[in-house]
Amino acid sequence: MGGDRSRIMQDSKQEALQRMKSIAGHVKGIERMLENDAYCIDVIKQVQAVEAALNKVNSLLLEGHLHTCVITAVRGEDVLERERVLGEIAGVFETSAKL
Amino acid sequence: MGGDRSRIMQDSKQEALQRMKSIAGHVKGIERMLENDAYCIDVIKQVQAVEAALNKVNSLLLEGHLHTCVITAVRGEDVLERERVLGEIAGVFETSAKL
Amino acid sequence: MGGDRSRIMQDSKQEALQRMKSIAGHVKGIERMLENDAYCIDVIKQVQAVEAALNKVNSLLLEGHLHTCVITAVRGEDVLERERVLGEIAGVFETSAKL
Amino acid sequence: MGGDRSRIMQDSKQEALQRMKSIAGHVKGIERMLENDAYCIDVIKQVQAVEAALNKVNSLLLEGHLHTCVITAVRGEDVLERERVLGEIAGVFETSAKL
Repeated sequence: MGGDRSRIMQDSKQEALQRMKSIAGHVKGIERMLENDAYCIDVIKQVQAVEAALNKVNSLLLEGHLHTCVITAVRGEDVLERERVLGEIAGVFETSAKL
Repeated sequence: MGGDRSRIMQDSKQEALQRMKSIAGHVKGIERMLENDAYCIDVIKQVQAVEAALNKVNSLLLEGHLHTCVITAVRGEDVLERERVLGEIAGVFETSAKL
Repeated sequence: MGGDRSRIMQDSKQEALQRMKSIAGHVKGIERMLENDAYCIDVIKQVQAVEAALNKVNSLLLEGHLHTCVITAVRGEDVLERERVLGEIAGVFETSAKL
Repeated sequence: MGGDRSRIMQDSKQEALQRMKSIAGHVKGIERMLENDAYCIDVIKQVQAVEAALNKVNSLLLEGHLHTCVITAVRGEDVLERERVLGEIAGVFETSAKL
């Protein structure tokens, strides 16, 4: 993989990591709400906010992946590897439609 | 709120809390995957698994809420409170459709 | 059901019907795009627009339902009917999380 | 585009078209339910079934697109075109997360 592509991937993983750390804090906060018997609807809204944040992480990771591994695999000469990588994208999309 | 309704709510919050603790562990695992430069698609699939687990938490909490606070509010004589509680359910549904 | 509640329900079903007619036109338009070999991504975006419109229809119907049938059932004295109606709301929410 | 790729795309569009025709019938059925004052929850469930069917259409179209246009663009030498096509995939994924 070229230096540029490798850097794109590192950047998107770094940003995803920062976001996951913030999400971990958010999850801890929801645990405390449940321990303190917070109002159900307030807890549900916080869980939905975490889900929106996780969607954003996946968008970031997918974008990094498309501009690195997918380009490398599709431009490579290994037809099976190309099919595998494109099949993964379709699979991720299908799962996302069920969430 | 009657003793039965109060217990239903406590049970659903207890189970939600157990699930959130397990989700917190799952989130930490995803941070480690990112730190260890795991394959993007594997990370994305784990994030989707956390989202499915959070959906389950919200289903649980909503079910508890419907069988407790919603019954109390709707059977009460305070019409504004009743509207408020039903409006919250509609709001949670609308947000969920956008996740 | 009181006259007010009955009118709320009629109104939400009328608006849902108007929206479904517009959605039917949108679906026909997508068929034509496919027949004319339109660019895939343009078709996908139109399908997503129809899905957003259907989400809106369901929000409308649920809101009408909460303010009519749910109030009637929960304020009634038939405990089984009350459970049935609240269980339906939980079921709709759970399915919506998987779409 | 090679003959194989072109056929993959035609096949996925043909199948999408068949499914859209069946969805159009389903939408008409929902209109009749609303005209006949069907029970709200039954209507909501049918709308959710249409949404699941539309998700399936988009999965099909995306899979066809990945194995045709995306391969052609990514293997081509036009860097801007490649970026454009990959950006579209990321955009479709992001919208899908909000539905």
